[in-house]
Order: sequence, then C-alpha cells, then structure tokens
Amino acid sequence: MRSRRKRKRRCRFCGREAWLVVRQANLPLCREHFASWFERRVERTMRRYKMVRPGERVLVAVSGGKDSLVLLAVLAELSEPMGFQLEAITLDLGIEGYSASSVETAAEAARALGVEHHVISIKDRYGFTLPEALKADRRPACSLCGLIKRYTLADVAREMGFDALATGHTLDDMARFILSSYMTAAISELVRLTPVVPPGLPGLPRLVKPLYESLEEHIRAYAELRGLKYMPDGCPYASTAPSDRLRIFLDQVEHESPGMKHAMVRGYLKRIRPALEAHLRPELPPLRPCSRCGMPSSGDVCAFCRLREKVARLLGRGELS
Amino acid sequence: MRSRRKRKRRCRFCGREAWLVVRQANLPLCREHFASWFERRVERTMRRYKMVRPGERVLVAVSGGKDSLVLLAVLAELSEPMGFQLEAITLDLGIEGYSASSVETAAEAARALGVEHHVISIKDRYGFTLPEALKADRRPACSLCGLIKRYTLADVAREMGFDALATGHTLDDMARFILSSYMTAAISELVRLTPVVPPGLPGLPRLVKPLYESLEEHIRAYAELRGLKYMPDGCPYASTAPSDRLRIFLDQVEHESPGMKHAMVRGYLKRIRPALEAHLRPELPPLRPCSRCGMPSSGDVCAFCRLREKVARLLGRGELS
Repeated sequence: MRSRRKRKRRCRFCGREAWLVVRQANLPLCREHFASWFERRVERTMRRYKMVRPGERVLVAVSGGKDSLVLLAVLAELSEPMGFQLEAITLDLGIEGYSASSVETAAEAARALGVEHHVISIKDRYGFTLPEALKADRRPACSLCGLIKRYTLADVAREMGFDALATGHTLDDMARFILSSYMTAAISELVRLTPVVPPGLPGLPRLVKPLYESLEEHIRAYAELRGLKYMPDGCPYASTAPSDRLRIFLDQVEHESPGMKHAMVRGYLKRIRPALEAHLRPELPPLRPCSRCGMPSSGDVCAFCRLREKVARLLGRGELS
Repeated sequence: MRSRRKRKRRCRFCGREAWLVVRQANLPLCREHFASWFERRVERTMRRYKMVRPGERVLVAVSGGKDSLVLLAVLAELSEPMGFQLEAITLDLGIEGYSASSVETAAEAARALGVEHHVISIKDRYGFTLPEALKADRRPACSLCGLIKRYTLADVAREMGFDALATGHTLDDMARFILSSYMTAAISELVRLTPVVPPGLPGLPRLVKPLYESLEEHIRAYAELRGLKYMPDGCPYASTAPSDRLRIFLDQVEHESPGMKHAMVRGYLKRIRPALEAHLRPELPPLRPCSRCGMPSSGDVCAFCRLREKVARLLGRGELS
C-alpha cells in the first residue's frame, strides 16, 4: 500500500493522514472514510441502475476471489439499509486443487459475515465436472465455464426463488469486455454488457453487477482494509494472453487519464449501446423455454442441455477417463 | 528490411526468393510481385467502395510523408487502367522549416511521375498561417490543422472542379481513429470514419481513402521498393502521447493476430457503423451553405470562417506577433 500513500495529504473528511487517494476525483481518504466512500459508491451504482428493490431476495455468487469476497462483504453491509435479504452461493466445478479451496474460502467469509451460504456441486446436480466438460467439448475453457456457471447460478436461483443474482464483475472487467467486443464488432455481446440484465423468461432472477462502477484498485484496497482472505487470482484453466494485453493497455490509459475506464463504460451505456440495441432488436430471436429444462433458449434445446447430453453420452461410453 | 525476409521462403507467384511475407495471408512475395500485390489491393479497395468512376478527375493531397507519396505513386499507376485523371495538391501551411520541404518533396515526386502538381499557400489564400491560427485559437494543434486542411482541400477541389479528393489515410490510421472514438463513445466521429464520404453539398468533391485497407508496414515496403524519397513522419506541432499508446497497443495485437486491424475496421463498417448511423440520422443537423463562403456548415457561419475572422481580427490588432 505504501506506493498509494501520499505523505503530506490529509483525508478530505476528517483531516487525518490519508491512506490512499482516489485519483479520478483527486480525493485523499483515511482508511475509515475510504471504506465508507467505497460502500457508498456501490450503493449508488445499485440505486442508479435499480438493481434491487426493498424486500427482495438477493443471491450473491462467490468464487472466493477478491472481487466476489468484496461484493459479499459490501452487500452484507448494504442489505439492512437497502432492505434486501442476502444469501451466498459457491459452485463446486470439480476442479482438483481449486474448487475445494474456492468453496472453503467462500464459506468462511460468509460465516464471518453471518450470511447463509449454499454450495452446489455441478457433478451432483448435472452429472459432470468442468474438467470432464472440457474434454468433451472443443470450446475455449473460459467460454465453456462461463456457460456452465451462468446456467447453474440462474437455475439454482430460480429454484430457490431469488429475485436477483449478483456477480462480482468490476469496472475493469466491463471496460475490457466492452473494448474487446468493439474490436471484434461482436454486437450481440455488446448489447448485453449492462449493469442489469433482465430475466430472459418469467421466474428467473435478474442479473446484477453492483461493482460495475468500482475499480479493482479500490476493490483490492477495500479487501485489505477489511482483512478479507481471498484466493489468488487465476483459475488453472484460464489462458490469459489476449485479455492481458487489453488489461495492460487499459491500465496504462487509466493511469495517464484517471477516470477513463468509467468514462468509456458510461459512453458505451449512454450513447453506443442504445443505438446498437435499437438496430439489433428486430433481428434478435425471441427466447423460449428449452424443451428439456425450461430455461431460456433461442432454439428448441438450450446450449447447456446440449452440452450436458454430449458429456453424459461420452461418460457413458467411458471416453472421458 | 532484413527482419522481414525469410531465407527459405519462395515467392508464391514466381518461386524466386521472397522479399517479404504478407503475414495476414501467409503470402511470401518477391519485390516485383509484392509491388503488384500492393497496387492490386489498393485498386480492389477503390472498386469495392466505388471511390472513382471512369472519366472522373481526382485530386490527391500530398504532404510529402510516406503515406501520401505512396498514394500518389499508386494512383499514378492506376489512373490509366481505371480511367481517371489525376492531379496532386500540396498545402503550404506556413510552418517554418517544415512547409517548404513538404512542398518541395511533393513537387519532386509529382514531377518524376508526370502528375500535374498544385501548391496552395493558406497565407496567400486566406491571409494567415497555421502558426498564426494556433496562437489565436485554443484548440489542440492537430484538430485545428485538420479543420484548416479539410476546408482548404475541399474548397480548392470545388473551385477546380474535381470529382474526388483522395487522402493517404491508412488502415493503421483508421483502426486507431475507430478505437479511439469507441473509447470516448464519440458517435458523430464514428459514423464518418468510412472509406468514402459523400459531398456535404452539391459541387463539392467526395472524399476517398484508397489506402483504407493497406497496412503502413506494406506502405513503407512499397515506398522503399519504388525508391520514394519521403519526409520523416511527424509534424513539429504534433503532441503524440495518447495516440502513440493506441498505436503501440494495436501494433502488438496485429503482431500476435495478423489481420486483426482489417477485421476490426471491417466489423466497424459492416456491423457497428450501420447501427450508429441509423440511430443518429434523425438527430443530425442538416448541412447548409455557410453564409460567408458557401461551404457546408451546420450553423449560419462555418467553423473555418469563424476561425478566419478571429485570426484576421487579432492580426489586424497586431496581437499575434
């Protein structure tokens, strides 16, 4: 933290020595005022985009990484003043040497915060692990894992009757996804990179991203300040090269022009996305219930059920061992 | 050039030792076949986007830098087979130690190619130099210079009755402009980054960019091969930091994924721009003739005439010396 401290600067609110400076606002803050500034910022994001209404039940997805642990801790702070009920969920994807500590880290954090915590093993629920799915399907690991996690979280949240499903996507993630989708002109991706995604069909939770306007730099600082014990970044399957290039570029630009990531994401939301969405809407296939599982699908059988059947077939023939 | 040569590779067309490899197509070429490949690529761009029709008169803007000299040389090759008449123009912006050699370099290249060459001094024509305008106006140098060059070239081309005005914008330029406009969500910029811009009012030339699909790497190789003597890049007024950051990033990504710049620009043209344009069209103020000069303007007096009057006022008072 030493590098973020500025010796002579004083907290804008109490005059004590500043612990860090929020660069985009040139705002020096002590530890206590940084914590409340950070929490207020998340609350403002949630209110601005109408993520949660009073009385609703919110399920937060916790992997045990820094972003999701901070999200859990902040939502635990906000649940009473904002009037929502909070529970947490961790998926056990069956990755050796990773999933067990992911579940344990999340469970411990939830226990410390007094938040009810659910663990869902995809092997128990759907009959296969992520490593088995990766052997059965040629898609890149991150894209397959994304499909499995999105489906499972929405499926469980629907079953348990949650109104909203919260994930730890950060401002840095969103800036990277948006820029990467611009570069490949991936319009159908581009229209979905919003802070709130409404449910595809009735009965499903809306997807919300309360850290949509929070920088990872500040998330890391908040985790340190709250003493959160998170897992190191990086899943064993992630191949990170192209996204690292984007990350480094965006970090450099943010360093030179503090506030740029936020400006870029706001510009996307206010000017670019509405145009793309209006243009794309007539072409979008309407979602309908998957004939196997009832979850939203653009075809007769959803992508997850097709994957699940393929893996089951190969597992049945003993071809994945 | 040594680094671009691959010892063992042979020209795809004639089997001689390859001089360079076009990486996005994995295409090894000797000097002669590279030259014709490069010229055919520019011709294909011109035909694909209907830049010039047979019998038309084309004015090419030549600054004396590598891109515009290559454009001049290629258009001189293409003018007979494609059936257009070609003349060249260089603006003397009155920048000490730069404009004179810009004019001289361009004049010599045009003479060698047998292309008629016009020199327009903005001091003679409008009464002020670029350095004087920069003292009178707070806009960044590149934005002011762009305004002056765009206006002057269009004004002269209209006066001389040209159908099209060709500029040396490259694929690298376009990728950089597009990415930068994405990042700032500058929609009104974004819709104009096309290979052909139709005239804003009747009687004006259409603006065309024949190097829209050509990489600077290949432009540099073509200049070397043709022995073109160009001025080094970089005007004395350009402050290059933010655009350099983008350039380095895009060059890295192109190096790792050859063809990415072209894919990005094509994706912009085919998918993103049509959506933005359809959305923006109803909001665009219609262009009308400037009440002073008759050139297209969104207001009563165009930006150039406002600048010109401001500089004249300050020059009259002796405030710019």
